[in-house]
Amino acid sequence: MIVEMKTGASKAEVDGVVQKAKSQGLGVQLNVGTDKTVVALLGSNTGQLPTDMFAVLPGVESVTRIMKPYKLASREFKPADSRVSCGGVEIGGERIVIIAGPCAVESKEQLMEAAMAVKKSGASILRGGAFKPRTSPFSFQGLQKAGLELLAQAREQIGIPVVTEVVDPHDVELVSSYADMLQVGSRNMQNFALLTNVGKSRCPVVLKRGFACTITEWLTAADYLLAEGNDQVILCERGIRTFEDSVRFSLDISAIPVVKKSSHLPVIVDPSHAAGHYSLVPAIAKAAVAAGADGLLIEVHPNPKEALVDGLQSLTLANFTSLMAELKPIAQSVGRYI
Amino acid sequence: MIVEMKTGASKAEVDGVVQKAKSQGLGVQLNVGTDKTVVALLGSNTGQLPTDMFAVLPGVESVTRIMKPYKLASREFKPADSRVSCGGVEIGGERIVIIAGPCAVESKEQLMEAAMAVKKSGASILRGGAFKPRTSPFSFQGLQKAGLELLAQAREQIGIPVVTEVVDPHDVELVSSYADMLQVGSRNMQNFALLTNVGKSRCPVVLKRGFACTITEWLTAADYLLAEGNDQVILCERGIRTFEDSVRFSLDISAIPVVKKSSHLPVIVDPSHAAGHYSLVPAIAKAAVAAGADGLLIEVHPNPKEALVDGLQSLTLANFTSLMAELKPIAQSVGRYI
Amino acid sequence: MIVEMKTGASKAEVDGVVQKAKSQGLGVQLNVGTDKTVVALLGSNTGQLPTDMFAVLPGVESVTRIMKPYKLASREFKPADSRVSCGGVEIGGERIVIIAGPCAVESKEQLMEAAMAVKKSGASILRGGAFKPRTSPFSFQGLQKAGLELLAQAREQIGIPVVTEVVDPHDVELVSSYADMLQVGSRNMQNFALLTNVGKSRCPVVLKRGFACTITEWLTAADYLLAEGNDQVILCERGIRTFEDSVRFSLDISAIPVVKKSSHLPVIVDPSHAAGHYSLVPAIAKAAVAAGADGLLIEVHPNPKEALVDGLQSLTLANFTSLMAELKPIAQSVGRYI
Amino acid sequence: MIVEMKTGASKAEVDGVVQKAKSQGLGVQLNVGTDKTVVALLGSNTGQLPTDMFAVLPGVESVTRIMKPYKLASREFKPADSRVSCGGVEIGGERIVIIAGPCAVESKEQLMEAAMAVKKSGASILRGGAFKPRTSPFSFQGLQKAGLELLAQAREQIGIPVVTEVVDPHDVELVSSYADMLQVGSRNMQNFALLTNVGKSRCPVVLKRGFACTITEWLTAADYLLAEGNDQVILCERGIRTFEDSVRFSLDISAIPVVKKSSHLPVIVDPSHAAGHYSLVPAIAKAAVAAGADGLLIEVHPNPKEALVDGLQSLTLANFTSLMAELKPIAQSVGRYI
Repeated sequence: MIVEMKTGASKAEVDGVVQKAKSQGLGVQLNVGTDKTVVALLGSNTGQLPTDMFAVLPGVESVTRIMKPYKLASREFKPADSRVSCGGVEIGGERIVIIAGPCAVESKEQLMEAAMAVKKSGASILRGGAFKPRTSPFSFQGLQKAGLELLAQAREQIGIPVVTEVVDPHDVELVSSYADMLQVGSRNMQNFALLTNVGKSRCPVVLKRGFACTITEWLTAADYLLAEGNDQVILCERGIRTFEDSVRFSLDISAIPVVKKSSHLPVIVDPSHAAGHYSLVPAIAKAAVAAGADGLLIEVHPNPKEALVDGLQSLTLANFTSLMAELKPIAQSVGRYI
Repeated sequence: MIVEMKTGASKAEVDGVVQKAKSQGLGVQLNVGTDKTVVALLGSNTGQLPTDMFAVLPGVESVTRIMKPYKLASREFKPADSRVSCGGVEIGGERIVIIAGPCAVESKEQLMEAAMAVKKSGASILRGGAFKPRTSPFSFQGLQKAGLELLAQAREQIGIPVVTEVVDPHDVELVSSYADMLQVGSRNMQNFALLTNVGKSRCPVVLKRGFACTITEWLTAADYLLAEGNDQVILCERGIRTFEDSVRFSLDISAIPVVKKSSHLPVIVDPSHAAGHYSLVPAIAKAAVAAGADGLLIEVHPNPKEALVDGLQSLTLANFTSLMAELKPIAQSVGRYI
Repeated sequence: MIVEMKTGASKAEVDGVVQKAKSQGLGVQLNVGTDKTVVALLGSNTGQLPTDMFAVLPGVESVTRIMKPYKLASREFKPADSRVSCGGVEIGGERIVIIAGPCAVESKEQLMEAAMAVKKSGASILRGGAFKPRTSPFSFQGLQKAGLELLAQAREQIGIPVVTEVVDPHDVELVSSYADMLQVGSRNMQNFALLTNVGKSRCPVVLKRGFACTITEWLTAADYLLAEGNDQVILCERGIRTFEDSVRFSLDISAIPVVKKSSHLPVIVDPSHAAGHYSLVPAIAKAAVAAGADGLLIEVHPNPKEALVDGLQSLTLANFTSLMAELKPIAQSVGRYI
Repeated sequence: MIVEMKTGASKAEVDGVVQKAKSQGLGVQLNVGTDKTVVALLGSNTGQLPTDMFAVLPGVESVTRIMKPYKLASREFKPADSRVSCGGVEIGGERIVIIAGPCAVESKEQLMEAAMAVKKSGASILRGGAFKPRTSPFSFQGLQKAGLELLAQAREQIGIPVVTEVVDPHDVELVSSYADMLQVGSRNMQNFALLTNVGKSRCPVVLKRGFACTITEWLTAADYLLAEGNDQVILCERGIRTFEDSVRFSLDISAIPVVKKSSHLPVIVDPSHAAGHYSLVPAIAKAAVAAGADGLLIEVHPNPKEALVDGLQSLTLANFTSLMAELKPIAQSVGRYI
């Protein structure tokens, strides 16, 4: 951590910083420049110390953190790639894993049709929402427990693991008793009560990036899961909020190489929620595979015109099959397979 | 709702839109332009219908919502200003209400000293966090239940109502048994499980704006509270995430007149979390009062240098007293008082 | 254009809108809803009319534009893909065109070494800045006219067309007398005096997207070039400004399919300025090719450690050669070649 | 400047950084932490050195700038407030200066009526655009030279100084021969050819903030003007681009105290371009005065319904008079006058 003193800061003010640092067990090195004094604070946990502790002292101009605030999710903490296992499917290895299915579980027919079709086209995991976080209280909120039961039936009958979202910290046990993997949605990335309970459950989990959270905040949120002992964590980039209005969210393609550099956790991409429109999904999906994503989370619906939620961003079964055929050679051209 | 057909859309495609609209009980009016056909959908609930329902139909280029998605929070629904009562203090009337106190409850001494001082300087409500949502699991998480007990003691001994944050839907009953008013934090603005439970509690609530949520989304989140029958809702602008890096968040000053135009709910401003630095708090606080805010939520700490959370943005007791003196003539110059 | 009247707008207010529309030669259709009256304005040039003309009338709540404000750049205006020719190299066809070279022309040796190497590795066009727009007046501003002369020498000796930036409207003639193609930089995307002169020159031009401009604004800026009769326009996505701080700019990957849908102009991608760090360039470059870009603009420097400008984002010659080898199979997997 | 080495960086890599620093005449201090080595670079011009010079060296993890990149605009360079004189009106003193008038000069009648009215209501300087930067080539581009002549007439006949925008570097002499003060618009804040020529002219200038530029970039752009010897520079905050869609731009109210802390230059606010709607202008204008702005730039039109440009954000003459009456007591309550 680097503490920049104000021009003309007194010796007593510099001493105040030094003493505060020593009281925290930190090493200190003074850099007396021509215009300013800069104090470097040294120690292995400076990433987790609040900068305010020093910024608030008299004579301090600014405090800059050099160490990252996340720890357990960092590649420095664990250099080798992590792999996550969801119902026997490994994520983070050579294979690029495709997770597909409808945004919301709507009925047995809808879910079974989708599940059979996506499995046939090469998807390894089925997605479907039972608890739906909706911006308006007047929108369809999901089938809830009945939706979980349908997911469990699909898993049994079709033979495909399932992932579904959990939105209430007190539902973690319930949802993980039906699903192979939990999903924490974008709006809950910093719902720390939820993260703590999901961490305790040890159930594999997809942690979606908050749509206005930095990659640093995302990896720090992953630390909540890891700190509770759950090492089965997958990151999912799903678009960030920007000024651009031709898409719902702008997919942050550079998040993939940045996460790969900074963290050992697998990272997948959800092109559907980013784009908000089915016609844009294939281009984004292909880009994600080329950029190094470990998987894709794609919305597919047997009949998007009748979908209760997010029909516009769902691929039809036929379009999904076409996309899978297009993705395979791209995966090969980056040394992987689907 | 306005459905723009693609150039050259067929009659069958236009008919498809018309029939979908009629199946939803909507009126329809066709506008056949020189280049395009535009279909206007008429009805009193078009704000709550998903646009995807039409956007997904063949031949459709775009769908534009004319009605707002929020309803109960809108000024059209309730033209007169709402007032909220917190422990006998009215918010939304002629008086501008000052809520002040430390970011986190740290100890009995700290809280009592802060409470006495802010009351003496003219604050009407005491703030203090017992459950703290922190970006890192390694940071101080608040005194939790012990913090609630200290808040209740402060209320009794100093005679000032208290507001504190609730972060878990299952803690609503507990927290509201200690506090006069609940706070839903910025990161929980779209935690719909929490909103639903806070709505059911009927306890007065401060709903902070999500730091990357539009005003429309904020008012739609307020609908979750109002739909459960809780009409004691105060909105709080606390800064939004932008590219500017000289502050933690950019206070959206125009949110005040926009909310006043669009909604009947009172709106207050938190200059402390926006600025992130105590030296910027007074200018933002003064601007908020001049722009028409119904109140301010200000962090004040007896000893910011020793604060466990957010010390840099906290005013000292002396600085808070000075600011209160500066705010009073501004309040008068806009026809109100503090 | 859709004009939404306020709830309770009077007949006279509605008539005011109708008359204004008729005075502009527009057709009008009234939609009297249960709550509101909505007036649809019909005509072939509503995209170019200012919405303010109606928004300012009494009784109007909002005005929504249905037609896009750009015209000549739109795919509706010209359905077939445009192709641009730069010194005999065609952009916008089956071949993905690689433009590479140093950020700034620094010396004859540096430019010749870079030019030979990038040509050998498969680049078709050489880039190099002679006039450099720099955020600080104390930074290196480019070799200016001497730089143009070196570019012309490189073209002659190495046999490769060159593209370089123009920053002053009165330098267009000078720069286009040396270069095969002009570049309008991100900070000049809305420098309309410059666009007008570049449009008049009829010289092929790469129009970089303003780092905080929407795709709609970008295509409307292209209309400035096209309206002056210059149809040799290439669009270049180079990253947009967001809150994310791990990169200089966030490459907007979805801009590629959106532009392809909305416009007939070729679109290329500059991964170097977006990333700001050489280690991120390959992943973004691969993603751009997979997403459908017609070309790439990549910074390559014989010795990035000694580069006067943007060394951190420049690939070494060896890294560029490796990247070219990796890009080729991706191009093939999307039905194109490099 | 702080150079963080990678974990495990070799001694040779650290030496490489040290030697590079010494070759630039910088002092160096090594901080060997438990995990990492951090190298502090000391010197009075580190703010103007490119960070890439070090970031590109082997073994370097990150480079953090401590000194700001701007110099002449900084309060460290010149601690006392600067004052600017425009046709005898001083900006930056105790008086808050109101600049008002139409967005575009449209006709002699329009300009004279506006000029007389705003002067009568207390404005000190007349604004009016002759050269209009418009996003579409099909929009009204201003009266250009004829507009400048009308502005000069208004100045003579009404007795009020005038400010108008310059958009082409080669028009600086022309425009400054008619106007008392130049304006550099938001889209030209980083048009360095224009800044250089305006700097050379020594004519007073209002430098609007780029709508997606940081305050640091804004002050660095001011350095272009100051470096050419023009010390008559006024900064103007006019709203930044964010995700919020209820306004055209989000006025960054905290820019006022941040600029006051960082720079000696006067700062004014344009509430009209930020809001985009006349109904929001008064609240923002009042907030700006309360926050410490040195002046306001307000659009006023005798007949906004017939305005050729930006009618929706223009105040009527009556509304401007009312606003002036409301602003006066707020100015007094912050120790100033209008």
